[in-house]
Amino acid sequence: MLLIHNTSFVYQLTPSAQRGSALGTLNPIPHGAVLLDGERIISVGAPAELLLQHPEANLLDAGGGAVLPGFVDPHTHLVWAGDRADEFEMRLQGKTYMEIMAAGGGIAATLKATRAASLEQLLEETRPRAQAAFRHGTTTLEAKTGYGLDLETECKQMEVLLRLDEEGPLQIIPTYMGAHAVPPEFNGDTAGYVRFLTSQALPELKSWWQGRAPERPLPFVDVFCEQGVFDLGQTREILTAARDLGFPLKLHADEFANLGGASLAVELGAVSADHLVKTSAEDIRRLGSSQTAAVSLPGTPFGLAQKEYTPARGIISAGGILALATDLNPGTSWNESMQFIQALACRYLKLTPAEALAAATINAAAALGLDDQIGSITPGKQADLLILRIPDYRMLSYRYGTNLVSTVIKKGVVYPVD
Amino acid sequence: MLLIHNTSFVYQLTPSAQRGSALGTLNPIPHGAVLLDGERIISVGAPAELLLQHPEANLLDAGGGAVLPGFVDPHTHLVWAGDRADEFEMRLQGKTYMEIMAAGGGIAATLKATRAASLEQLLEETRPRAQAAFRHGTTTLEAKTGYGLDLETECKQMEVLLRLDEEGPLQIIPTYMGAHAVPPEFNGDTAGYVRFLTSQALPELKSWWQGRAPERPLPFVDVFCEQGVFDLGQTREILTAARDLGFPLKLHADEFANLGGASLAVELGAVSADHLVKTSAEDIRRLGSSQTAAVSLPGTPFGLAQKEYTPARGIISAGGILALATDLNPGTSWNESMQFIQALACRYLKLTPAEALAAATINAAAALGLDDQIGSITPGKQADLLILRIPDYRMLSYRYGTNLVSTVIKKGVVYPVD
Repeated sequence: MLLIHNTSFVYQLTPSAQRGSALGTLNPIPHGAVLLDGERIISVGAPAELLLQHPEANLLDAGGGAVLPGFVDPHTHLVWAGDRADEFEMRLQGKTYMEIMAAGGGIAATLKATRAASLEQLLEETRPRAQAAFRHGTTTLEAKTGYGLDLETECKQMEVLLRLDEEGPLQIIPTYMGAHAVPPEFNGDTAGYVRFLTSQALPELKSWWQGRAPERPLPFVDVFCEQGVFDLGQTREILTAARDLGFPLKLHADEFANLGGASLAVELGAVSADHLVKTSAEDIRRLGSSQTAAVSLPGTPFGLAQKEYTPARGIISAGGILALATDLNPGTSWNESMQFIQALACRYLKLTPAEALAAATINAAAALGLDDQIGSITPGKQADLLILRIPDYRMLSYRYGTNLVSTVIKKGVVYPVD
Repeated sequence: MLLIHNTSFVYQLTPSAQRGSALGTLNPIPHGAVLLDGERIISVGAPAELLLQHPEANLLDAGGGAVLPGFVDPHTHLVWAGDRADEFEMRLQGKTYMEIMAAGGGIAATLKATRAASLEQLLEETRPRAQAAFRHGTTTLEAKTGYGLDLETECKQMEVLLRLDEEGPLQIIPTYMGAHAVPPEFNGDTAGYVRFLTSQALPELKSWWQGRAPERPLPFVDVFCEQGVFDLGQTREILTAARDLGFPLKLHADEFANLGGASLAVELGAVSADHLVKTSAEDIRRLGSSQTAAVSLPGTPFGLAQKEYTPARGIISAGGILALATDLNPGTSWNESMQFIQALACRYLKLTPAEALAAATINAAAALGLDDQIGSITPGKQADLLILRIPDYRMLSYRYGTNLVSTVIKKGVVYPVD
């Protein structure tokens, strides 16, 4: 048993009683303590009381820092080879993301590098990103394939994700995203690639998964529903096929144009709809009365120096489960830190620091369907916690650009930062 | 002697032959090596050649990372007590900086806390910020007083700066900023406070300095020339008195309103004019043909979630010495990282990564009048260098939110990060 004491506050982030209705609540316990037993949180309360009940517990001194649930990053493209620093300069000079993509850059450039990389090389390049995310307080992270598109490379990406998850301590929740772009083999034949995905790739990926990781639930399936990528009909086709095979669903919707993806995500019972920059009022209303989490990725407009962000206040007003994620990827947003995403969300989504924190923990857990296991400091949940160098959670967004986490605790194991 | 080898590139950042004409030039030496002797850079070149010349040199393996000059942060308010996390929330809800200041918040709140703090407490609170700046690659940092305003507290702040500089390794260049605001004792009597500054505070501060640090040059004197703070006439009065006493000058100009501060800085031969958001075309022209560096602080509009930034491209076109700084302070921008400032500058000032790097090194050194000693990898200069975890300098702005420095070298001493 481990007792975390000498805290400024323990911020529980109590989840709402009912999923699908707004945000977790910040519940600050001044000088609170948290008792862990192995991988689980046992209780939260006054340190003296907990110590009386369990005098045998080992003590962990929080040094007067705040204690929070570990951050959950519900949308990343963690696993790729190479970089696109040269495109960064092109974009600064005014080229749009879609223009760079049309010119064979963007995802196509990373596709080439990722296909060419050996499994070992892909592991070596990806591992430091997983470690950086963990050092910055992310204890669970979703990660998508989608830089291979052919089944061989997609499985190689999946293998990297499974190995890094097995290495730990960062817990990785994989997503299959064969529908991230149309690969060169199907250039001009999106319909043909959709047929390949639904009739061949999805069933074969399922078999591969059941051979490789039979004890794990199937990964998510995600589609880039966007002008020039997959239209709404094609997206529906892919997601329906995936659902019929038993895959849980996610969806990239409304990043650059509104095609109706958010409403489709709700209709198909996807666990989340992500990006949501160009989302219409009608789509927001539907999201708000659904169980589908709304995942905002403010790092992407920031990374692209664009001015338009997710209409987050509208989503909150509509009752939506607003979550935050990094969108970590080599093109639009190479950033591993959920702390910085909260700083952006306060400034550009007009969230309060408490809303941003809920969106980065309990609501982000909901965007992975894991809000019963992680995302809050609740007895029975997995012992994923952070100790900060600072006493006040608001400093996570008030301050920015540096790492304010001093200790990450994952499944009860203590990892000091620095 | 120390030979840094196994680099991707050594980026020299050669200064322009003539001060007052634009930017330092990025000069990348592929797989270059740098030879240090004690506190000095001796030579830059091919590793085999340098090793042949000095086979006795110790070797430092850069691990394939890029080598840069240390960052210079030419504008910070490093030394204060307390925090203003509650004002951060007020501002998110729409209150302006000037409104919060008028309501007794802002600088006044920090003033109260800083006056109340003991020297020891002020040291303890300030030291982690100096350490964070250093870990993120800042090897020289300017720091202003101005949260005391009465002479006793101003000297206490100055004492903290001198002690932290003496502790090292971060080199601190102090600035006296009694003219940061009008203190409560002079409420409604700005003219009276200006008289106090010119006739009493400046001469007494000079005597104090000459007793405390006789071997050091006088500190800079800086004034907050702004609507509701010091107008142009008062600014001129204070700066002229300071100049007559032998102090070198800096100036806060055009942050929220254009009062003509930038042109005044040029006229009085100030080493820099800082902020420069509302700067007029005429002021930009004057800056461009002067020796006065133009210091942009993009963290401040970012911190305040404002949309307007320094017209940096105009300043560069006019031939100005454009520099970048953090403006680290407890109100508008609590950020210690010059890396993040470069990421902002590429996105919001439309600098190229090479321009941002020059602005954070050699031009920032010019904004302290130290470009003959620091800011580039030049034989004879102080051995202040960085080794990055990455091979390409552009990643400093392409990626963001994490620390990409692996080793900081200050005056020839090697400090690993993490």
